[in-house]
Amino acid sequence: MMTLDVVILAAGQGSRMRSNLPKVLHEVAGKSMLLHVVERAEKIGADTTHIVIGHGADLVKESLAEKNIKWALQAEQKGTGHAVAQALTAISDDSRVLILYGDVPLISSETLESLLSTACADTLALLTVCLDDPTGYGRIIRDNNNNVTAIVEQKDATADQLLVNEVNTGIMSVTAKKLKQWLPRLKSNNAQGEYYLTDIVAMAVADSVAIKVCHAAYPMEVQGANTRSQLQLLERFHQAQLAEELMSKGATLADATRLDIRGTLQTGEDVYIDVNCVFEGDVSLGDSVSIGPNCHIIDSHIASHCEVKSNCVIEGAHLAENCTIGPFARLRPGTVLAEEVKIGNFVETKKANIGHGSKVSHLSYIGDAEIGRDVNVGAGTITCNYDGVNKFKTTLADNTFVGSNTSLVAPVTVGKGATIGAGSIITGNIADGELAVARAKQRNISGWKRPEKKPRD
Amino acid sequence: MMTLDVVILAAGQGSRMRSNLPKVLHEVAGKSMLLHVVERAEKIGADTTHIVIGHGADLVKESLAEKNIKWALQAEQKGTGHAVAQALTAISDDSRVLILYGDVPLISSETLESLLSTACADTLALLTVCLDDPTGYGRIIRDNNNNVTAIVEQKDATADQLLVNEVNTGIMSVTAKKLKQWLPRLKSNNAQGEYYLTDIVAMAVADSVAIKVCHAAYPMEVQGANTRSQLQLLERFHQAQLAEELMSKGATLADATRLDIRGTLQTGEDVYIDVNCVFEGDVSLGDSVSIGPNCHIIDSHIASHCEVKSNCVIEGAHLAENCTIGPFARLRPGTVLAEEVKIGNFVETKKANIGHGSKVSHLSYIGDAEIGRDVNVGAGTITCNYDGVNKFKTTLADNTFVGSNTSLVAPVTVGKGATIGAGSIITGNIADGELAVARAKQRNISGWKRPEKKPRD
Amino acid sequence: MMTLDVVILAAGQGSRMRSNLPKVLHEVAGKSMLLHVVERAEKIGADTTHIVIGHGADLVKESLAEKNIKWALQAEQKGTGHAVAQALTAISDDSRVLILYGDVPLISSETLESLLSTACADTLALLTVCLDDPTGYGRIIRDNNNNVTAIVEQKDATADQLLVNEVNTGIMSVTAKKLKQWLPRLKSNNAQGEYYLTDIVAMAVADSVAIKVCHAAYPMEVQGANTRSQLQLLERFHQAQLAEELMSKGATLADATRLDIRGTLQTGEDVYIDVNCVFEGDVSLGDSVSIGPNCHIIDSHIASHCEVKSNCVIEGAHLAENCTIGPFARLRPGTVLAEEVKIGNFVETKKANIGHGSKVSHLSYIGDAEIGRDVNVGAGTITCNYDGVNKFKTTLADNTFVGSNTSLVAPVTVGKGATIGAGSIITGNIADGELAVARAKQRNISGWKRPEKKPRD
Repeated sequence: MMTLDVVILAAGQGSRMRSNLPKVLHEVAGKSMLLHVVERAEKIGADTTHIVIGHGADLVKESLAEKNIKWALQAEQKGTGHAVAQALTAISDDSRVLILYGDVPLISSETLESLLSTACADTLALLTVCLDDPTGYGRIIRDNNNNVTAIVEQKDATADQLLVNEVNTGIMSVTAKKLKQWLPRLKSNNAQGEYYLTDIVAMAVADSVAIKVCHAAYPMEVQGANTRSQLQLLERFHQAQLAEELMSKGATLADATRLDIRGTLQTGEDVYIDVNCVFEGDVSLGDSVSIGPNCHIIDSHIASHCEVKSNCVIEGAHLAENCTIGPFARLRPGTVLAEEVKIGNFVETKKANIGHGSKVSHLSYIGDAEIGRDVNVGAGTITCNYDGVNKFKTTLADNTFVGSNTSLVAPVTVGKGATIGAGSIITGNIADGELAVARAKQRNISGWKRPEKKPRD
Repeated sequence: MMTLDVVILAAGQGSRMRSNLPKVLHEVAGKSMLLHVVERAEKIGADTTHIVIGHGADLVKESLAEKNIKWALQAEQKGTGHAVAQALTAISDDSRVLILYGDVPLISSETLESLLSTACADTLALLTVCLDDPTGYGRIIRDNNNNVTAIVEQKDATADQLLVNEVNTGIMSVTAKKLKQWLPRLKSNNAQGEYYLTDIVAMAVADSVAIKVCHAAYPMEVQGANTRSQLQLLERFHQAQLAEELMSKGATLADATRLDIRGTLQTGEDVYIDVNCVFEGDVSLGDSVSIGPNCHIIDSHIASHCEVKSNCVIEGAHLAENCTIGPFARLRPGTVLAEEVKIGNFVETKKANIGHGSKVSHLSYIGDAEIGRDVNVGAGTITCNYDGVNKFKTTLADNTFVGSNTSLVAPVTVGKGATIGAGSIITGNIADGELAVARAKQRNISGWKRPEKKPRD
Repeated sequence: MMTLDVVILAAGQGSRMRSNLPKVLHEVAGKSMLLHVVERAEKIGADTTHIVIGHGADLVKESLAEKNIKWALQAEQKGTGHAVAQALTAISDDSRVLILYGDVPLISSETLESLLSTACADTLALLTVCLDDPTGYGRIIRDNNNNVTAIVEQKDATADQLLVNEVNTGIMSVTAKKLKQWLPRLKSNNAQGEYYLTDIVAMAVADSVAIKVCHAAYPMEVQGANTRSQLQLLERFHQAQLAEELMSKGATLADATRLDIRGTLQTGEDVYIDVNCVFEGDVSLGDSVSIGPNCHIIDSHIASHCEVKSNCVIEGAHLAENCTIGPFARLRPGTVLAEEVKIGNFVETKKANIGHGSKVSHLSYIGDAEIGRDVNVGAGTITCNYDGVNKFKTTLADNTFVGSNTSLVAPVTVGKGATIGAGSIITGNIADGELAVARAKQRNISGWKRPEKKPRD
């Protein structure tokens, strides 16, 4: 089998994006367009992936630092043919080359595999697409035997040719050997003064090289993004695809158009996701997990039968089964919840290990904490974990009862079954079973006169 | 008038749902598909509703425990004709039978009434629908007099028949007597080995029984849900219907596609609902109520001129006129607010009776509380209502002023016009007009040296 | 050049709105439909804007109190021709009159300028629009030379005329002189008994006055809102326009259909706005600002490189560069943040001036406060700024460290580099560098017996 070299064109500035970022680094579903294409090349088994860079070359290289890429610099933007030529020097003659575009992120591996499977030996494999409105695109012209004879640009097309709705996508595959013959013969005598890759199709016809055509499955997979408006259309189309995939795997979505997945979302059986949720990074949801409206969940694992109520933000957390979260809970990285933990409204947790069945139900901050099982943390409890420079740990053993409005001044350790009176500032350790109180005596003063409205100065 | 027996087919597993739940129990607008159909049967005046169950029979029965249903078990799934036959033994010959489907939830009562009104005596009344793309559906074949002569399945249709876009919905009505003649004659000599109800149409033609046809008003009312993707389409279509209905009654919606009503939403005049709100259970909104973006409101009554700001969660609450809520307020069951109460951000209330004009503006938890009128509850106030096993009540009489960061250790009663100093832990009652303070003396220590960064172990 | 008098018809009740508000005061993008039209008149350089009022006249006048309007009262609603006549007495013969509608809010200034530019001297300039479905609208009838000869209403149209899809929008321009000739000749012998402005087109033809036609750029700009459903369609269409405009200026939107702008939103370069955000009033976002999902931002300035995380509500705030806000932060009017300030979850600020690099990270209320640079405000800190009648100020000098769960009883001043122990109630000033503690001594009591479940009465 021939080796496969994928060449991805990524040198353009994308001035219509009106951005400081190189065009191919703009994101779809939380991932640069270019990375989408690189991953597709990996998926179809590219032996080598070449990326032709130009504008913002350093930023582009940096963005893929962890990938094994052969970089080719196109110092001046002289067209797609010229761009491919920059990569070609590093490719051996007996390779098959597949040309992709860094701003066409949704190309599917199925389509590419299908394109490559039509290609053999010296044929040129061309990906085309049928558009309802082909205006502006190069039309695919075929002879009576249905063989491709030319690609005719909009401005050069006859009235009959303008009626053709099959157009060129720019994605094609051909041997390196042929490319090396053809690319040097490209001319730049056109309005833009550029060397167009498309012109090799005419050369193939002239050289009697067979042209095999494969159709894109749907137009959006070959759609490029030149503007943020186009980028947004790709985003929504891709999100719709991800939503369909999720539903086909057995998740119920309240609204498929109001779901955003930017990364990987794994779901168990009978998962329910309410409207307007956003998932980022690697998130997994176990069986029968229910996520309420307006949740934002990042890099977290939520085990079976957990219920996340409306308006929660969860990041870097690990929840065991049957936890109940929110509404308005904010779990931060390092939150590890055992089974049946309950985190309620206006509660923030961070680096907190919370044991089986424990509850933090209201208005609390639990940071740098080790909490046992069956602990009840009252409303308004704060772990005072920071002295301005160092962070300290709070430990609450099993079955602790922390009264409301308690301040736990870390480092502090509370023993099993201990009780803390409401409103206490706890600065010292508490032994098993002890009651700790740190509060001032209440004084009631009669004859108190309420303040009066002061005149403003 | 003939008695009307509605037979609802609900025995299918729905394996394409990929769910542990029987298909008909999947929900649209917070209610199982089957319950939608049962309620429609009730609405059109069914004398008896029969449901044919099979997969998950117990769960299905349980879900309708409060309804008066005649259950028929279809132990093996041998087709729609076989299913209807299971219910038929319990139906007297002189009844009219209407056949509905537990996975076709949006069928309108208007359409069913229209179908039944076309039926008389021995006619077979058939509900059809015209589809832009009829592929896969049984085509309605008519003779030159426009009478139905057959239903032809996709695979058996001629080229001409394939052009017909009027298709069978499966919903039909006929006398029990006729069904009892026809169903035993159904054959299962088809690819699936099933007895198809549809085949009775040919029998009616053969027996010279008149077939009366009625058209569905729109395709979605006869659309079944076999996958979660289809379920989601039904959900959104139905939500769009509910939104239109709400607007026609005089509510302004910021975005009709971003509203979810799962239950009953009553609205007064000039109600405004901002984007992305979810209503569940029985909710009523009085005149000129305004609901901000991202609110989630469940089983609550909100009287005229209340303003609910963005990101509130309200459940089981009763608000009198002119209250102001949120943003970020969470009212839990048992919250009863008198007129002009203000609940502000990061405030949770539960079983709280709050009097006219009182304010809880910031970061508080008010549970199991009886609060009079014109009370001001300062920021960070917590009712310590729980000792680990029992819940206790906090009573604040009219005109109390509760300083910020106060802990009210219940049971506790605060008298009229009393004042509580900020930061107090109140463990004893306070008489009318008294000032209560429970706080430690402040000590300022000079020469204090700040902690230094400790080396990590 | 002729003077331009714009006459806006705004007398209708809009009973299909089912509202107490006059129809033209219903809002699109946070602004009454009428105000949209008035601003368009201003934009195209109207010398005088006349508004014909009737139903709810006082409310309508009040809503535009700050605009320079000539009001004309149409006491009885006798049709569009009659309405224009009420304004005409105040217009001199040598003016050009442009007739607009208070319930057609999205008419573009480009279209109006184009309409006016087609008009000259005595011609009648008519705005038409082509509709896919023209049912119900007055068709534009033209002769063989393509000149308009009549407007034929639906009910009077021949089969051929019904096929015409160019329809009358009602928007037209003609000299006052001509109007004064024609309007008195209108007849009300029609089903409604009204005087229709449209009838002057026939008079123009009869009088051999040239009719110049201009087409609307798209149907929605000439679409009126008679129902809340239509209002909502205008809202979404307009929001889509605003989103496109924002993207074309270089903002990335996660979902263009989930953005609401009600006022003016200025954006710098490479701004990112996540799903479901609402902007009201005047908001500006500097370069590279990122706004998370579900934010609600009102009348605020957010400088470059700020990050606003999910679920924040910001109103009347001014943020310098590189601030980090949220999630779940609520900034209220008078919040002024210097560079690199961090406001975290469940924090409310109001009239708070916070210095460079200071942090209020968790569960705090900071109101009426002057905070220096590099101050750390611990979790659960409350400024007790209110004694029931007066508000007092809290001042924290540079480099203050406020321990968690602190109550700052204002008026209070804390000196530079001072430290406050966790859980303190601070009632007196603290000098530079001092440590202040106000907390009770902790007592640990062994042998404590937990409360037992009490029987309910």
